[in-house]
Formats: sequence, structure tokens, C-alpha cells
Amino acid sequence: MRRHFPTVEEIVSGIRAGSRVVLGQAITLVESARADHQALAQDVIARLLTEAPAEPATLRIGITGAPGVGKSSLIEALGIYLLEQGRCVAVLAIDPSSSISGGSILGDKTRMERLSVAAGAFVRPSPAGTSLGGVARKTRETILLVEAAGYDTVLIETVGVGQSEVAVRRMTDVFLLLLLPGAGDELQGIKRGIVELADLLAVNKADGERLALAQQAQRHYRNAVHLLPKSRSGWSPQVLLCSAQEGKGVAELWTAILHYRQQTQQNGFFAQNRWQQAHYWLEEALQAGLQALFQGNKDAQQLLKTLEPEVLAGRLSPFAAAEKVLRAFGNK
Amino acid sequence: MRRHFPTVEEIVSGIRAGSRVVLGQAITLVESARADHQALAQDVIARLLTEAPAEPATLRIGITGAPGVGKSSLIEALGIYLLEQGRCVAVLAIDPSSSISGGSILGDKTRMERLSVAAGAFVRPSPAGTSLGGVARKTRETILLVEAAGYDTVLIETVGVGQSEVAVRRMTDVFLLLLLPGAGDELQGIKRGIVELADLLAVNKADGERLALAQQAQRHYRNAVHLLPKSRSGWSPQVLLCSAQEGKGVAELWTAILHYRQQTQQNGFFAQNRWQQAHYWLEEALQAGLQALFQGNKDAQQLLKTLEPEVLAGRLSPFAAAEKVLRAFGNK
Repeated sequence: MRRHFPTVEEIVSGIRAGSRVVLGQAITLVESARADHQALAQDVIARLLTEAPAEPATLRIGITGAPGVGKSSLIEALGIYLLEQGRCVAVLAIDPSSSISGGSILGDKTRMERLSVAAGAFVRPSPAGTSLGGVARKTRETILLVEAAGYDTVLIETVGVGQSEVAVRRMTDVFLLLLLPGAGDELQGIKRGIVELADLLAVNKADGERLALAQQAQRHYRNAVHLLPKSRSGWSPQVLLCSAQEGKGVAELWTAILHYRQQTQQNGFFAQNRWQQAHYWLEEALQAGLQALFQGNKDAQQLLKTLEPEVLAGRLSPFAAAEKVLRAFGNK
Repeated sequence: MRRHFPTVEEIVSGIRAGSRVVLGQAITLVESARADHQALAQDVIARLLTEAPAEPATLRIGITGAPGVGKSSLIEALGIYLLEQGRCVAVLAIDPSSSISGGSILGDKTRMERLSVAAGAFVRPSPAGTSLGGVARKTRETILLVEAAGYDTVLIETVGVGQSEVAVRRMTDVFLLLLLPGAGDELQGIKRGIVELADLLAVNKADGERLALAQQAQRHYRNAVHLLPKSRSGWSPQVLLCSAQEGKGVAELWTAILHYRQQTQQNGFFAQNRWQQAHYWLEEALQAGLQALFQGNKDAQQLLKTLEPEVLAGRLSPFAAAEKVLRAFGNK
């Protein structure tokens, strides 16, 4: 990354002015591993946040589902619909596997042909990275950037097969699970426990000959959701039908999302959830940073390398070894 | 704790000479929160370990089961039997709830009337403490002390209702789950997943009118165990019957334990498991110590206290806040 980056002032005013180019550059800074890029990115975010309205009216929507469920098509259909409703839509992704798979989600922007070129929309592929923590952090900071740039609706896509959907759940206001026609979690290729995370479930591809199967899946998941313990949000998850291909059910999906927001804003959960999420990411960042400090301390690491064989051989207590290593760390 | 403690030399030679009084004092040092006691305890353990035989022939046995299953009676029966076999038996306990409940296990030594006064046996009540981590550490260091004192068989008791049985599993060679006559995990009052931890299951109180019920439980758990994935040890868990009251099944239980040891020593799992446990406790101790260093750093904690409300209010990125706090920590 050798191209010139503008100053904090230039980036902040560029983002405020709605420049997608400057917004893209700022996200590239957030995603960069270089210390000077990170410092610049942090300055930009700090400036944008301190000058942000006290109660931003943004909505963060997490969307997951097994590969092949039609996430991209549904996001495109929903995004276009939201633009028509006068909203500004940003689409982001969390996919820690993208560096290996070459980007299984959003990697190919052309999959959202209309949305990615529409005015008022901003589509950003998944950041590269092998660790979920790193990718999650980049995505969460990117949310702050796109919101500061005026995008009031942020769709965050992930693949429902790993730990990433838990991370997305922890940075969004509402969580949507996309399903395929036909019943049974195993058939759906989704991870156990993922249904419990969802505020909304939508059976996609509910069109043509698949409609009956989709309705069967809807019944199945309505029963499954009914059996779950009451959510902290006080909201009862809904199971909808939709067809990204035929554009059906998209308005209903949006209505359900707004309904969810209204109810959780009234009972206080919406704001409370954002506080808890901020607290969670602060703790996460502290833990990860503490680990990095320890891993980067040469004296402590060298001593650990010397003492570990003694511990494994039973000649040194693990607790005594840890104390010595931490003393070396503390002296630094 | 104001009484006089002997020197490292005196404690080490006292333990070697088989003094139960000195052993008890050393364990009290391990359990103490005072820094000078801890330093003395660590010196004692270090001395004992460096002079320990390369391959100690000790056996660490974890024993769990719901309250009322008869753990104390079974441990007493097994302990007396082992003394007759010429072994030296130490009985320890992990019970993080003991400071609240006043010691639900081993708190009352008189529950093991014969064993606690028998020559060649050493019974130590659960150390006080509210955190499992602290209690687990004390127990693991106590294992080292009693082994150095010549106790070749260490029985570690815990209540099968919390996280403590996972900790005990991680410091023992073989894990025994005691059950009651009658089928069904819920009826047994045991935690879900605990059956998976067990190398041996024994239905206690298999006597008199309860024998048929005990056999029913035995069938139930044989089926349950059969359905579990193959354990890393290569051992197929066995389900036995016993009666601590009538002294029945105790010899068979011991035979099964020896059989387990023989098989896992032959396939290498026994030694491998001890290495992995040592590695696990080293990591645990490093993590806990790192946390303690961070929590004890006044500058970092004060800054965190100042910045956290900003993060929760959305005016500061959690990652930026963490970076500032960790910089304050690193400068110290």
C-alpha cells in the first residue's frame, strides 16, 4: 500500500461530504497492519465519534445462513428496497476464511451488481485475515466509519458455519438467519445453536415448486423457535418466507425488522444491547492486547521456553514457572 | 496464622521423614494468601520436585458424584482397602463452594472416621476459597506435596454439580463418576456432559432392595457410555456396581483402575496426559497472573475507569480505548 493517504482533516471532511472514495481509503487504513495507518485510522475514528450525534438513528443488521442459501441475492434485494425507502445502505462482511478461500462472501462484488453501483449504497468486501478477532475488529471499526459517512442502515453478512456469526451477533442490533426450503438443521448445513441467535428467520427461495417445501421449513422453524427460552430482548423470533429472485417477502422482512426495533427501543433493550456490545469489545480488545504485550516480551518468552520442559517433565510446578515468567514480564 | 513455620530444610526433611504434622503445615503454607507463606511454599515444592524420582509411580484418582451419592463412604472403603494392599493414600477435595456452605465435602473429617486416623493415610479437607481457580491451584500443589511425602495414591473428591469436576479431571490420571441406583441423568442430579468425563462409572448403594434399581442404572449408563465418541485414551469406560456400606465392589473398582492404568501406560496416554495437564496449568497460571498484573496496575485501571463511560456512550472506539489503557499498563 504505497499510495498517498490524505490527512485526518481531509479524510474526516471527505467522509462527511459523502465521498465513497475517501470512505474506502479510510476503511483501507482500518484494515492495514501498518502502525502509521492504524494511528491515522484511530485518529479519524476518534474525530468522527466525538462529533457524532448523541443518539444516532442507525440500524445494524446481521445476516447469516449456510453457503448457497442466497445471502447475496437477498441482501441485494433488501438493499435496493431500502434505497427506495430513502435509506442509505452499507454492506459489510465478516469471513475469517476469506484469505484462504479467496473470499467466499462478498469477494466478488459483481454478485451485487445493482446495489454496488447504486447511489446511496456502499458495498465493501470482507477484509482479509486469518483470525476472527482481527477480522471482527476491522469490521466493527468499519461500521463506525460508514455510519459517520451517513449510512443509516448497515448490513453485515457472514457464513453460518463457524464462530463468525457470534461475532456478528455481537456487533449488530438485529440478527437474521436465512434458511433453505426443507426442514432440519442438518439438511440446512447450519451450525447447532445458531437458531437461538436469530431474532428473525427467513426461508429464502420460497418460490415456484419450492413454495410447499419452504412452508414446511417455516412450520418446522416456528416450532423450533417456540421451544426456545425467552430471549433477553423480550422479542419472540419470527419466521418469514421470502424470495430474493422474485423480490417477494422483502417488504415484510423490513417491516419485521422495524417492528423488532420499535419493540426493543420501547423496552430499553436496544440501547442496553449497544452498551453491552461496547463493553464486550472493550474487554475483548484489552484481553487481546494484553496477550500481544506478553507474547511480544522477549525476556518473558525466552524464560518460558526454558522453563516449559521442566514443567512438562514434572520437575517444576506450573505455578512457580508462571510466577517466574510473569516476574520477567513485569520487570520489562 | 501466627504460629511459627519451620525453614525450607526442616519442612523438606520433615515431609520426607513422613511427618503428617509437617506435611499439614506445608499444605497450610500452600493455602495461605500471605506472600511470605507462598514464597516458602514455592521453595519447598521446588526442592521436593527437583529431587523427585524421574518417573514417580503415583496414581491420581478423581472422584465425583452428586451430593448424597455416598462419595465419602466409598472413598473411606476404597482407602481402607488400598491401605490393606500396602498403598499409602491421601484424600484431598476441590469444593469452591466450601467457604459459603461451610464445607460440603470433607469439611467434617469425622465422615471418614477410620481412614482419617489410619496409619499410611492422610485426609485433608477442602481448602477455603471462592474462586475455582484459586482452589484448583491449591489442590494441585497439595498433590505435589503429598506425593513427595510418599503417598502413592491420591484420591481427589469433588461435587459433580459445577465446573470443579473439569478442574479435577485436569489434575488426575483417572476419573470416577459415582451414581445412584435408578436411571436418568436428571434423576441423578448430575450435570450434563459429566458422563463424558468419566473413565469409570460406579453405581453405589447397590445393596439390599436397591440392587435391582442399581442394575437398571448400570444398563442405562452402559448404553449411554457406548454411544459416546471414542476417548483419546483408547479406553472404553466401564460401569460397575458397588456398595460402600457392605464393602462390595471395592476390589473390583480397584482392579478396573489398575486395568485402566496398565492400558494407558502401554499406549503412552498416561504420560502424555500428565504432560498435557502440566501444560494446561502452566497456561492457566500465566493467564491468571497476567490478569492479576493488569488488575493491579493503578494507572491502567484508573484510565480504564475514565474511558469506559466514553466507550459505552459510543463516543470512543473500544479498540482505541483498549490501546490507550494498555499503553498506560506497558509504561509502568
